[in-house]
Amino acid sequence: MAQDRQERPFDLLNKVIGQHVLIRLKNNVSIRGKVTSFDAHMNIVLESAEELNSDGEIKAKLGTILLRGGNIIFVSPV
Amino acid sequence: MAQDRQERPFDLLNKVIGQHVLIRLKNNVSIRGKVTSFDAHMNIVLESAEELNSDGEIKAKLGTILLRGGNIIFVSPV
Amino acid sequence: MAQDRQERPFDLLNKVIGQHVLIRLKNNVSIRGKVTSFDAHMNIVLESAEELNSDGEIKAKLGTILLRGGNIIFVSPV
Amino acid sequence: MAQDRQERPFDLLNKVIGQHVLIRLKNNVSIRGKVTSFDAHMNIVLESAEELNSDGEIKAKLGTILLRGGNIIFVSPV
Amino acid sequence: MAQDRQERPFDLLNKVIGQHVLIRLKNNVSIRGKVTSFDAHMNIVLESAEELNSDGEIKAKLGTILLRGGNIIFVSPV
Amino acid sequence: MAQDRQERPFDLLNKVIGQHVLIRLKNNVSIRGKVTSFDAHMNIVLESAEELNSDGEIKAKLGTILLRGGNIIFVSPV
Amino acid sequence: MAQDRQERPFDLLNKVIGQHVLIRLKNNVSIRGKVTSFDAHMNIVLESAEELNSDGEIKAKLGTILLRGGNIIFVSPV
Repeated sequence: MAQDRQERPFDLLNKVIGQHVLIRLKNNVSIRGKVTSFDAHMNIVLESAEELNSDGEIKAKLGTILLRGGNIIFVSPV
Repeated sequence: MAQDRQERPFDLLNKVIGQHVLIRLKNNVSIRGKVTSFDAHMNIVLESAEELNSDGEIKAKLGTILLRGGNIIFVSPV
Repeated sequence: MAQDRQERPFDLLNKVIGQHVLIRLKNNVSIRGKVTSFDAHMNIVLESAEELNSDGEIKAKLGTILLRGGNIIFVSPV
Repeated sequence: MAQDRQERPFDLLNKVIGQHVLIRLKNNVSIRGKVTSFDAHMNIVLESAEELNSDGEIKAKLGTILLRGGNIIFVSPV
Repeated sequence: MAQDRQERPFDLLNKVIGQHVLIRLKNNVSIRGKVTSFDAHMNIVLESAEELNSDGEIKAKLGTILLRGGNIIFVSPV
Repeated sequence: MAQDRQERPFDLLNKVIGQHVLIRLKNNVSIRGKVTSFDAHMNIVLESAEELNSDGEIKAKLGTILLRGGNIIFVSPV
Repeated sequence: MAQDRQERPFDLLNKVIGQHVLIRLKNNVSIRGKVTSFDAHMNIVLESAEELNSDGEIKAKLGTILLRGGNIIFVSPV
């Protein structure tokens, strides 16, 4: 686990490309989906995205979405 | 699927030019329409735009609109 | 309709100079008026501006107004 | 009315120096007063400023005020 | 009253150094105090600051405070 | 009290390093503690920090905290 | 404890790499977890993150999360 540089938060986004994440948004909505891409503003494209209610049940199937980073509270690999 | 560069979120907007998208806004309004253009702030021009209520029913026909990127939660091809 | 460059959202504002638009604001107010000028922040000057309530009825005649771009949800030619 | 350059929204502020304007703020307060100066952030100094309630009645006499541009929805000459 | 340059809003802050002002904040709180210093973000240091309720009565004596400019609606000399 | 330069608001933060301050936050929470360090964004580290309710009573002992400047309304030496 | 330079708030984040912190967010949610990395925007990656309710009880186990700095009120070592 030798490192040439200090780990940075966006490294986590790099690791989850192609994997499923749970994203909590400011309006208390949660979105689950597979990460396709992201940028420096934390804008994220998800495939097979699903909107979840506060009990974690699927509220809507959204397909592919481009999510604006500014609305994100946290991103978590699942 | 060879790539010369890493995919980025805005590539999705490039792909949906001329296609219909559903856009969820911060005030819980959703807008559906055909993408004509976009810029780096995620400002988007839609043609044949329709405002949808929370049940997905058409609330108002808006025609052509220039939508400010700052109000967008997500953009989804439909 | 040959184009030398990609269309951008602000091109719509250029086209509606001298024409009437409907502008939806964040506080659920809508304003209708004739566009005189705009800038890169989407600040817009309207002549003969009218404030509309949620039923689209005229609530107040505002005359000439300088509208701050940051409050705009969308601009639509009418 | 020949013009050497395109009109811009802030030109309206230049024209109303020394004149009375009505300014609608985000918190539904309106302020009326005589414009003394403004800057690129739309910060505005008003003399003889009065705070108006939603019926347009005078709620408070404020004298000279420096108003932060970020709270402004629109500025209208009266 | 000859002027070598156009007056700017922050000139008002320069003039009130050492004088009392009333500052209206976004959360409907008003603060009164003597201006000691300010900067380009409208951050302001007040001495002998007092918090006022909506009736203008003293709610709390705050002493010296450094007020963040971003919360200010307006500053008014008293 | 001769001065080589104009006083600035952040000078107050320099003076209170090692001293106790009361910090009012946007969400109506107040925090009291001893200032260890600060930066240009008004991010502040407090030691022996205590969260106070609106009556000024201690609601929680927080120990050392790094407070984001963007949430601050004012900082006051106590 | 001789110092070559003035201490800065982000030094606290450097010290808590690998340690547990409590993070208070704007929406009154608190998150506890072990800091893995952070950046200049105060974006923070936590391992073994837990969401706490206002009584400090565990509401949800979140695993690894990337938390956006903009939602943070304060970070406190525990």
